[in-house]
Amino acid sequence: MLTHVAVLGSGSWATALVKIFAESGVFVSWHVRTQDQADDINANGRNPRYLSFAELKMSFINAYAAVEQTVAHAEMVIFAMPAAYLPDYIKNIDKSLFDGKTVAVSIKGLIPGTSTIPGLYLEQQLAKKNVAVIAGPCHAEEVATQSTTYMTISCNDETIATTIASSIKTGYVTTIINNDPAGVEYAAILKNIIGIAGGIAKGLQFGHNFRAVLVSNAMREVQQFMTAIVPRSRDLFDSVYFGDLLVTAYSDFSRNRTLGKLVGRGMKPVNALDAMEMVAEGYQASKELAPVIEKAQLNLPVINGVYRILHQHANPYYQFMLIEKHLR
Amino acid sequence: MLTHVAVLGSGSWATALVKIFAESGVFVSWHVRTQDQADDINANGRNPRYLSFAELKMSFINAYAAVEQTVAHAEMVIFAMPAAYLPDYIKNIDKSLFDGKTVAVSIKGLIPGTSTIPGLYLEQQLAKKNVAVIAGPCHAEEVATQSTTYMTISCNDETIATTIASSIKTGYVTTIINNDPAGVEYAAILKNIIGIAGGIAKGLQFGHNFRAVLVSNAMREVQQFMTAIVPRSRDLFDSVYFGDLLVTAYSDFSRNRTLGKLVGRGMKPVNALDAMEMVAEGYQASKELAPVIEKAQLNLPVINGVYRILHQHANPYYQFMLIEKHLR
Repeated sequence: MLTHVAVLGSGSWATALVKIFAESGVFVSWHVRTQDQADDINANGRNPRYLSFAELKMSFINAYAAVEQTVAHAEMVIFAMPAAYLPDYIKNIDKSLFDGKTVAVSIKGLIPGTSTIPGLYLEQQLAKKNVAVIAGPCHAEEVATQSTTYMTISCNDETIATTIASSIKTGYVTTIINNDPAGVEYAAILKNIIGIAGGIAKGLQFGHNFRAVLVSNAMREVQQFMTAIVPRSRDLFDSVYFGDLLVTAYSDFSRNRTLGKLVGRGMKPVNALDAMEMVAEGYQASKELAPVIEKAQLNLPVINGVYRILHQHANPYYQFMLIEKHLR
Repeated sequence: MLTHVAVLGSGSWATALVKIFAESGVFVSWHVRTQDQADDINANGRNPRYLSFAELKMSFINAYAAVEQTVAHAEMVIFAMPAAYLPDYIKNIDKSLFDGKTVAVSIKGLIPGTSTIPGLYLEQQLAKKNVAVIAGPCHAEEVATQSTTYMTISCNDETIATTIASSIKTGYVTTIINNDPAGVEYAAILKNIIGIAGGIAKGLQFGHNFRAVLVSNAMREVQQFMTAIVPRSRDLFDSVYFGDLLVTAYSDFSRNRTLGKLVGRGMKPVNALDAMEMVAEGYQASKELAPVIEKAQLNLPVINGVYRILHQHANPYYQFMLIEKHLR
């Protein structure tokens, strides 16, 4: 059982994690961007920018603007910022801060310019083994409203996974453990891209009939990718793989789906990104994965079509006409 | 290429089939329930009861109240009524009417009291081989609005499947052929039950996070069922299997999902059925499949939970608490 964790990041998902651990009776040190933000949270018991309607259990939370203070007394440190911010964050940090601590990651993206998953990146940068992955299917918005939610804790070291999982004790979260952290991270990245595909289809005014064809074929692409890139025996029907894909493909809370919808309606991808207040991880991931997919010579028309639309100026309408020919 | 088909049945799906074939330039004889209904359709070019907003291409359609007239000159006869009505329909029909004709079925249910799929039932009753199955994922409502739709034509005889598929030539329907008619029929039955499960979850006010867990686990149950009951190599990611499941689990057009929602909100299943204007095939199918599942000793908590709620007076709330423990 953990008694004290540090959460690094102040977006909606980081806020949901803070909420979950605090309500489980685990003390949370929370690293946010500025002293003003930390003071605001500590004074008012809410994150003013994300999930602001969620009341946080402040008797178990302290927000800080300095990472050293945040991490100092925690047994586990959870990285929960967008993947794009991770390299700068790590560069300026004293690595010895993490000595003797469990490190976990809850980021659904790839490190820009590297095609590296965040867990592996942290293992390299912090010279750590057994970085744990904390995953969904889990919209932060539904954690805020305390909807029934399943979370999977994945780690090569089962003791670490079990310790984290057994420390989450809110009435609305069920935890599952798993020993496939790389698979879990890749699946989370792929589902964001597929969420964008579903959004584009919606934006192009395709109906339910077509979007079901799109998603079932995209699931096959996930299977093909996983078999080629992170081969091992796994059951993709476990909620952390296909459940997470479904919640992104079908829920209106999904930022990636929203990005796709805007693009499908005719907005340029960069403008659509600007129009959104939150990071849609699938945008960058689509770019980073393209060379991986090409190198492995995988034929993934949905995932590749999203790449072409977002990063190669392909017209969504015509690209979807091409995708349609590959669906079955 | 077919030039003349007969469609038996006058519900929304039968109406969609009539529309598709007529718009493909295939003449359609259509068997509806009464002479009044036939006259009304022939005079006004719409089915007044189902998809009444869809204009039908009457230069290629004639509705009849007598099955003999309907079938007489058709090369292919498509059965498209609810499974529950099929035995009575077949009992009173002259079997020699079907001599030399292709028979196809587009029914997503089981023959009451038999656990028999409609295609097999027709093969037995009409002493026919190679009954073809016409399947989705395909909400009739979206055919009516001419949304992009994929249909799979499945038959043990590939020539028959190809002939049917190549006769469908509307701009909005893409056809796929397949040689797994029994698998296609079973998958369609299972997805209706899972649609009910999704509806119950919605009625019980579970959110997106949980429903994604439910559906991904239900997909595993489909895989387990298919492997045990209709074993052969097949790719469940083909749209006719999981695509059809997704459109039922996630679209508000789904009657089975609607039934589930009413039951989840607290209505008794029989009252919920009465409150609906259309047949929810999953209700009866859930009952007919239960002994099949029990005999094969399959552990399918979602599918079995729906059975207990619909047919054994289980309380949806408590039954879902039990289901939750089995999800992963």
